[in-house]
Amino acid sequence: MQQLKFTINHHIFSKALSDVGKAVTQKSLIPIFSGIKIIAEDDGITLIGTNTDIIIEKFISISEVDNNGLHIKQTGSAVVSAKSFTELIRKLPEPIQVEAINHQTIKIKSGDIFTQFNGFPAEEYPTLPVIDQSNTIHMDAEDLIDAIKQTVFATAKNETRPVLTGIHFTFSSNKFMAVATDSQRLASIVKEINTTGETSFIVPSSSLNELVKQISDYSGAVEIHSADGYILFKTEKVSLYSRLISGTYPNTSKLIPTEQSTTLFLDRESLVKGIDRACLFAGEWKNNNITLTIQDNKLCISSGSSEIGSIQELQKIKDIDGDFDLKISIDGYFLMDAIKMIKDEDIKMKFNGTMRPIVIESTRGKSSYLHLISPVRSY
Amino acid sequence: MQQLKFTINHHIFSKALSDVGKAVTQKSLIPIFSGIKIIAEDDGITLIGTNTDIIIEKFISISEVDNNGLHIKQTGSAVVSAKSFTELIRKLPEPIQVEAINHQTIKIKSGDIFTQFNGFPAEEYPTLPVIDQSNTIHMDAEDLIDAIKQTVFATAKNETRPVLTGIHFTFSSNKFMAVATDSQRLASIVKEINTTGETSFIVPSSSLNELVKQISDYSGAVEIHSADGYILFKTEKVSLYSRLISGTYPNTSKLIPTEQSTTLFLDRESLVKGIDRACLFAGEWKNNNITLTIQDNKLCISSGSSEIGSIQELQKIKDIDGDFDLKISIDGYFLMDAIKMIKDEDIKMKFNGTMRPIVIESTRGKSSYLHLISPVRSY
Repeated sequence: MQQLKFTINHHIFSKALSDVGKAVTQKSLIPIFSGIKIIAEDDGITLIGTNTDIIIEKFISISEVDNNGLHIKQTGSAVVSAKSFTELIRKLPEPIQVEAINHQTIKIKSGDIFTQFNGFPAEEYPTLPVIDQSNTIHMDAEDLIDAIKQTVFATAKNETRPVLTGIHFTFSSNKFMAVATDSQRLASIVKEINTTGETSFIVPSSSLNELVKQISDYSGAVEIHSADGYILFKTEKVSLYSRLISGTYPNTSKLIPTEQSTTLFLDRESLVKGIDRACLFAGEWKNNNITLTIQDNKLCISSGSSEIGSIQELQKIKDIDGDFDLKISIDGYFLMDAIKMIKDEDIKMKFNGTMRPIVIESTRGKSSYLHLISPVRSY
Repeated sequence: MQQLKFTINHHIFSKALSDVGKAVTQKSLIPIFSGIKIIAEDDGITLIGTNTDIIIEKFISISEVDNNGLHIKQTGSAVVSAKSFTELIRKLPEPIQVEAINHQTIKIKSGDIFTQFNGFPAEEYPTLPVIDQSNTIHMDAEDLIDAIKQTVFATAKNETRPVLTGIHFTFSSNKFMAVATDSQRLASIVKEINTTGETSFIVPSSSLNELVKQISDYSGAVEIHSADGYILFKTEKVSLYSRLISGTYPNTSKLIPTEQSTTLFLDRESLVKGIDRACLFAGEWKNNNITLTIQDNKLCISSGSSEIGSIQELQKIKDIDGDFDLKISIDGYFLMDAIKMIKDEDIKMKFNGTMRPIVIESTRGKSSYLHLISPVRSY
C-alpha cells in the first residue's frame, strides 16, 4: 500500500464522507465494511463505501475544488472507520491534512489538533464490480428521480415475493416504464424518453431510495449500466452500484381494468384531508379499511373502530360520469399514498364495482401516471 | 354526569389538548388514565391529564377567547382517549362542536364531518389533590425556568438513590437555591428573590422538565404550593401537580472546595468544541475520560481509545493564576454539560490537584451558578 497524504477543505471532505457513509452499515459482520476507502490519485480523491447490497463511490476532483482546497502530496489508499472518522472531520476546523503513516494508522492534523486513527488494511478492501460500459442508457436525473418517487412506495415491504420488493424498469424504443406493486396496489409511470436500448431489470427499493438522496441536487444525465446481477447509476461525481433482484416480474398490464362503471372527479386537497381523518379510525383492521359511498350526490368517506369510535364525512363531487350506486372499502393509507403523488388540482378516480380495483390516472408533460388499489372485503 | 355541550375554536382546543396530553401515558395499566378529562363550566373549559406522577390542568376561559371562539351550551364533564381525540381535533376544520350524548359517547361535529368517540365514565376519574393554599411562594417564571434548566441535567439518571433523581429547592429569607447532583457532578444556583417563606423540597426531574415546557411562553409569577408529598405550580392557565421525592437531601455545601491550586481562564467557545472532539475518542471507558494538562503554557485536551485512535489538541490559556503543574482526567460529557450552561465569553475553571473536583463558577444578575465535577481515576 502506498502512503497517501493530502490536505483538503473541511466542508467538501465532510460532505463527501457523509454521502458515502450512507451506504455503510455499522453492524457489518465483516469489520472492513464498516469503513470508508479513501484513494488519493493525482487528479483527486475517491471515497468508497458499501454494505454489500450497494456501493457508493464519490470523486472529489482537484479541478472542481476552488481556492486550492485539495492538494495531493502523495498518492495511495487507506480504509478508515466510517462513523468516527466522519464525525471527527465534521468537527475539525479547516484545512485538514490526512496522512497514512503506516499500513493501518492514519494521522489527521488541523491547526493545533492532532489525531490518529486506527485504519483497516486497504489491500483487503474488495474491488468494485466490473461493468461492461457498452450497454449504456442515458436518462435525465429529474426523470429518473420522478419515476422512483412516484412508484417506490408501492413496493412490497415483506420478502415473501422478492421481485415485488423492487421497482421494475423497462426501456424500449423511446419509452421508459417503471412499475411497483405489493400485489394489493400498483403504481406505474410511462414516460417518453430518447433512448435506443431495450432492456429491463428489477432494482431493490432501498437502493433506489438511496440513489434519490445521492443525486437529488444533480441536474443532467445519469448513465445507467446494467450487467448480470448488477446495475450502476453514474453521474460525474457519484457512482452507485446496486445488486439487481433476479426473477421474473409479473405481467402487471393485465391487472389494469379496461372499463369502469363510475368515474369521479374530486378536489385533491379535501380528499387528502378527509382520508387522513378517516384513517384515524381505521387502524383496528389489518387493512386500515375506509369505506367510500355516494350519498345525496356527495362522496361519503367513513370508517370506524369498536375501540375508538367512528367518523363519517361528506365531500362535494365535482363531476361524475356513470353509475351513482357505489360502495367500496379500501385501505385508507394506500389511497392516501396514491393521491399524494398526484399533482393535479382534481383527482380522477375510476370504479368498476365493489370488488374491482380503483384506478387513479394523471398525465404530466410526457409522463403518464397510474395508481391501482384493490378493495378489501368488508364483512 | 351532566351532558356537556360546547363549540370551540379549533386551534385553541387543539393546542390545549396537546399540552395536557403531555402528562398522559399511553401505556397506563388503568385505562381511564390514558384519557383527558374535559369539564365544561359556565366560565370556560378545563382539561386534565395525568400519569399519576404529574397532573396537568389547563383552563380555557370564555373571556380569554376572541371572536366568540368558545360557547358553553351545557355544562358537564367527559373523559376521552387522549391520543386519538387530540389527533382528530388537530385534523378538523373549525369550529368544533363537542357533545356528550350519553355517559360514554362523545359526538364531535365540524362542518360536514361527524364523528363519535367512545369515552370513559367521567365519574371514575380521580379528583385532584387538595393543597393548602396558605403556604404559597411566588416566583418569577423566568427565574424558575432558569433554575431548572441550569441544574436538571445533573440529576441522577438511575434510581439507586431516589433523592438524587430530583432537584432540591430551598427557599429561605429572600434567597432561593436549587441543587442537583448525581454524586459525580453537581450543579447549583443561588438567587436573590423576594420571598418570606422558608421551605425546601425535592421535585422529580421529569416533572420539572415538563413544567419548563408548559410555562416556557409565560411571563409573570408562578404560585408554588407545597403540601405533604405533593407540589403545585400554578399560573393563570396551567396548574401542574407533581409528587415530591421523600427523603433527606445530602448536605452538598461541604462538597464544594474552598481553596484551589490553579485557576484557568479559557475561551468558552473553543473549549466546547475541543471537548466535543475529545469526547469522540472517549466512549471506550465507562466515564468518557478526557485528560486536561498544561503544556508549554497551553491547555492540552487529550483522549484516546484502543479501538478508534487518539486526539490531542492545544488551546490558548487566556489567564492563569497559581500552579502550572496540572493533570486531571474527567468525564468529558459532564464537563461539556456544565460549560454549555455558562453564558460568559470566558470560562473560569478552578483546580485543586489531580484528585479534587473541578469547580466552574459564574455570576449573572442576582444569580450565582456553580458546577462541580469530580475527576475519574485514570490508571
